[in-house]
Amino acid sequence: MILFYNPHTTGDTLELDAQESRHMVRVLRMRAGDRVQLVDGVGGWYEAVIEDAHPGHCRLKLLSRTTGPDPLPYSLHIAISPTKSADRFEWFLEKATEIGITEITPLLCHRTERTRFNADRMERVIISAMKQSLKACKPDLHEPATLTDFISVDRPGTRGIAHCVFTNRGISGRPDNSATTDDSATTDDPATTDDSAGRIHITELARHGSYTMLVGPEGDFTAEEVHAAMDAGYTSFHLGESRLRTETAGVYICAAISLLSASNPHG
Amino acid sequence: MILFYNPHTTGDTLELDAQESRHMVRVLRMRAGDRVQLVDGVGGWYEAVIEDAHPGHCRLKLLSRTTGPDPLPYSLHIAISPTKSADRFEWFLEKATEIGITEITPLLCHRTERTRFNADRMERVIISAMKQSLKACKPDLHEPATLTDFISVDRPGTRGIAHCVFTNRGISGRPDNSATTDDSATTDDPATTDDSAGRIHITELARHGSYTMLVGPEGDFTAEEVHAAMDAGYTSFHLGESRLRTETAGVYICAAISLLSASNPHG
Repeated sequence: MILFYNPHTTGDTLELDAQESRHMVRVLRMRAGDRVQLVDGVGGWYEAVIEDAHPGHCRLKLLSRTTGPDPLPYSLHIAISPTKSADRFEWFLEKATEIGITEITPLLCHRTERTRFNADRMERVIISAMKQSLKACKPDLHEPATLTDFISVDRPGTRGIAHCVFTNRGISGRPDNSATTDDSATTDDPATTDDSAGRIHITELARHGSYTMLVGPEGDFTAEEVHAAMDAGYTSFHLGESRLRTETAGVYICAAISLLSASNPHG
Repeated sequence: MILFYNPHTTGDTLELDAQESRHMVRVLRMRAGDRVQLVDGVGGWYEAVIEDAHPGHCRLKLLSRTTGPDPLPYSLHIAISPTKSADRFEWFLEKATEIGITEITPLLCHRTERTRFNADRMERVIISAMKQSLKACKPDLHEPATLTDFISVDRPGTRGIAHCVFTNRGISGRPDNSATTDDSATTDDPATTDDSAGRIHITELARHGSYTMLVGPEGDFTAEEVHAAMDAGYTSFHLGESRLRTETAGVYICAAISLLSASNPHG
């Protein structure tokens, strides 16, 4: 099944935007009279018929409106540092949307290296993944925010900050056992040399059905950032013993919340 | 920390291969006398000193051998269909290695479209992810196998076949509720129109600490393939209600086994 996307669908007829029109008419060679299905990104699922198969602004007549598949039984907001590679961040957006996420905020941290974004392109990745995975709800992509600004806003439910730090079960001969992905991370950063930030495993986080999770950049959060988040009510947690890249950590969290929610109806 | 890789490390000195030598000498500009750390892919972790910083065959003298971080507390073999896009399959290899996997077999199924592989390139992706995530054990990448051949081999522990099929909580107006990623999947395939294959959620699989999991191609396994696997002792399971791409399903399974093992010491 191929889904199309048109936001804010109301009334009996609509015109698809240029990109969706082109896909429908040029790529899939659909014609007037063909039936199609579309979603509006906010839960609506429509059946429609093509009235004018224009490759730039295809006109559809709506036949029926239903609601899409059940929305996620939880809400998950991940605020995650952009990665140096734009591809890796877009990969996170795609996979998080497929698995299930409700809100995404690019998080500007002390060690974040990339601060310029192509928001349109990121939005397209999300829409494509939403359609591919047959969802009727589109995750919200927020404007980038600094960590300081982000944690100053009160947010409901479970709040956590993931930082990828091994405990000190050191291996002799290794200068440090840092779990950050930054080869230049200093080892005198308290957060990378002991577990003073009191991390718990993600499976031990309180489950409220509503989650706000922070993921840091290559090089991880600084100890100051971790402590600032904790002071703002965020629980310090980890994802096990693997050293995960930023985007992998984000996707792992999506999978974890999806799995934990499946085994706990309160999410 | 930057790790280097040299398989089968024995004796007091060794020469790195061309790729590792180039990285060490040309990219990182390391010189004779510098200390480095390397892994052998089978659990060994070494400290060494550069004796000859040759950009093609750098010679090292070993100083100490320890064991790497604990290997995974479980074994996970995923047999997964190659995706049409080689990038997506390589992405699976990278993320599975980061999160934790022990064996990978490219699985040739009825609907598998790509059957040619660049095994060297796939191996390089795995080695790079192993080093990046600070692991001393390299997942085994096996030769591609047909589903029939793969399931004819007796394998210990929990065996499962993931197929991405919604139950029939249909949405009116939608011709089918198929969860396959193949838009041309026929809807008269029993496995896509009902849950006769008796799927359970991945969290309900028996936990033996040793897992063999099958993931199908774009377009999913055929009903015949699902039933053949079940006849061979594989439990039919699903990953929740999201329609996941092949490579996403593979990574989701890695995260799931990692999480389930963390909450169950028997893996």
